[in-house]
Amino acid sequence: MADLQRVGIDLAERSYDILIGPGLLGAADSYDGLPRAEHALIVSNPTVAALYGDRLAAALGCRYPKLLRLELPEGEAHKDWPSLNRIFDALLAAGCDRKTLLFALGGGVVGDITGFAAACYMRGVPFVQVPTTLLAQVDSSVGGKTAINHPLGKNMIGAFHQPLRVVADLDVLDSLPPREVAAGLAEIIKYGPIADGAFLGWIEEHLAALQALDKPALAYAVKRSCEIKAAIVGRDERESGLRAILNFGHTFGHAIEAGLGYGAWLHGEAVGCGMVMAADLSCRLGLVEAGYAERLRRLIERAGLPVRAPALGAERYLELMRLDKKAEAGAIRFVVLEAPGRGAMREAPEPMVRAVIEAHSA
Amino acid sequence: MADLQRVGIDLAERSYDILIGPGLLGAADSYDGLPRAEHALIVSNPTVAALYGDRLAAALGCRYPKLLRLELPEGEAHKDWPSLNRIFDALLAAGCDRKTLLFALGGGVVGDITGFAAACYMRGVPFVQVPTTLLAQVDSSVGGKTAINHPLGKNMIGAFHQPLRVVADLDVLDSLPPREVAAGLAEIIKYGPIADGAFLGWIEEHLAALQALDKPALAYAVKRSCEIKAAIVGRDERESGLRAILNFGHTFGHAIEAGLGYGAWLHGEAVGCGMVMAADLSCRLGLVEAGYAERLRRLIERAGLPVRAPALGAERYLELMRLDKKAEAGAIRFVVLEAPGRGAMREAPEPMVRAVIEAHSA
Repeated sequence: MADLQRVGIDLAERSYDILIGPGLLGAADSYDGLPRAEHALIVSNPTVAALYGDRLAAALGCRYPKLLRLELPEGEAHKDWPSLNRIFDALLAAGCDRKTLLFALGGGVVGDITGFAAACYMRGVPFVQVPTTLLAQVDSSVGGKTAINHPLGKNMIGAFHQPLRVVADLDVLDSLPPREVAAGLAEIIKYGPIADGAFLGWIEEHLAALQALDKPALAYAVKRSCEIKAAIVGRDERESGLRAILNFGHTFGHAIEAGLGYGAWLHGEAVGCGMVMAADLSCRLGLVEAGYAERLRRLIERAGLPVRAPALGAERYLELMRLDKKAEAGAIRFVVLEAPGRGAMREAPEPMVRAVIEAHSA
Repeated sequence: MADLQRVGIDLAERSYDILIGPGLLGAADSYDGLPRAEHALIVSNPTVAALYGDRLAAALGCRYPKLLRLELPEGEAHKDWPSLNRIFDALLAAGCDRKTLLFALGGGVVGDITGFAAACYMRGVPFVQVPTTLLAQVDSSVGGKTAINHPLGKNMIGAFHQPLRVVADLDVLDSLPPREVAAGLAEIIKYGPIADGAFLGWIEEHLAALQALDKPALAYAVKRSCEIKAAIVGRDERESGLRAILNFGHTFGHAIEAGLGYGAWLHGEAVGCGMVMAADLSCRLGLVEAGYAERLRRLIERAGLPVRAPALGAERYLELMRLDKKAEAGAIRFVVLEAPGRGAMREAPEPMVRAVIEAHSA
């Protein structure tokens, strides 16, 4: 595997590698060194299972004598308790013990539910992420955040549970619809303004190559995204501070997702639009120039992402954002840009937040 | 508080104290040093809330401006997802943030559900155990195991999540029905054969005082039980080995509970009978003398606990025990007595296990 790249997440005894490259999913080597067990369970959804389920099963078959497969209903609207419980039912019905490995084969929804199931089954079993969307490869599969949604808020019920490995096969991105590619680009773009000014410039130059799914461009973008995330998670695994900057655009974004009903917009779309709003807020707080916010807005638009938020009304936005996990004592806290390439957490005056919402919602 | 005793659980940054003594529940001092927050939630059940809810709320009121209270339906049969979700609903409806403290006011069921809710809400909030049964004071509130049941197995979905403190008020034991006292005695007796031969002798001598809820006797029994558990949990927090010996009697016991339907027998009753069976198994394995198994059986019987298991049929027992969390690759593993005062994990031949079941089930 000449093109294989490896990014390490340094978390003492919970350290692990992200493997990035073409053709990894079906290669038995990609799973070398994982613990042996009698049972393993591949969790996926019908679309992904039809494309890649057999390939993964063939690669794992010799390691796990009893390899189970489960398909969950697709989409963010199903990132809920009934889906989670289907995993527990499958594991218990097959008599799976504490050594059982779970494999999350899919995008962020499959990864988040499967990871949370692994965190809770018998108080914790190991799992592996095999992300099949660009968004999952650059963000959600890395760092150990797992969760399901609650009707009153996204990712409200979950755990920190690190995978044993992330296997990011770049070839599987060829099957992604353009909307999913754009959603993944949103999380890639995010890393520039919060942590790496030079990377933002690189994305601006290589956007067309990324959209065309050019392998060397994707390999670099996925690797650099994972490196930035690994560095941040390695310093603040449980989000006591720094790690929260990875949520740039997410406070507005989660409100859009919850306000429209999960699944109406893709998570990456909501984050894209949310970043436009958070950049404007940073500008109004006097932290960055209007030109920088506009530069970001243009890139997000070129990436094919929405830059106008839905008209839910400012009150509804504020109500939804007060439920954000970063809120404290009712005050909403935002990830803003302290300077180009540097994210930070700040409270913002409510009238200013209201003005941002009104300026950006259609 | 002259009679206050303190047992420390040493788990690095997750270390905490168990406070043991009369009158602690309603004393504001008992909560000194806990983090301040806007919200706190007391989770209880109707019986316990009626007896002690106001007293705890009064002690906490000055620390937490928005103190919420929730009553869950009573009993092991309700240690399930709907109860857990009622906690999430209450927290989200009130806009509780990540700093919110949960207080588990009740026995093992309330403690296990509340602890698991704390483990998952927003990926983890702090919680405090205020155990009101003898069993919870000597066992379930200590050590950070939290869980709910699944129809196919007890405690199958859960997390390791340590409380910030355990407040064990000996006065509340006065309101316990005798059956609950006996159930607590089962877990106290357990510590003798697995870890402390001298303590077993002490229990035999002081059984009548414990049954009469004599405060000095209770104080010693609760403290010694917590010390033994603290020493074991401090060496093996996540049950990679040693900690499993705390489950002496639990493999047979869980099968009794699941086989009869949760709640038919109290957990401590099932553990009491399970210890009789596990001691016999240890004897058949040639590890302890028949006289030692008989000595244990007599003590369990004197404590008012059942020593005959329900007639579920050996096949049903074996089927239920294969689902035990300690099982591996389909082989059931038992906590046995390697010697008087020393527990250990062993596999046992199926015909021998079957003979034990047949000898002890009515």
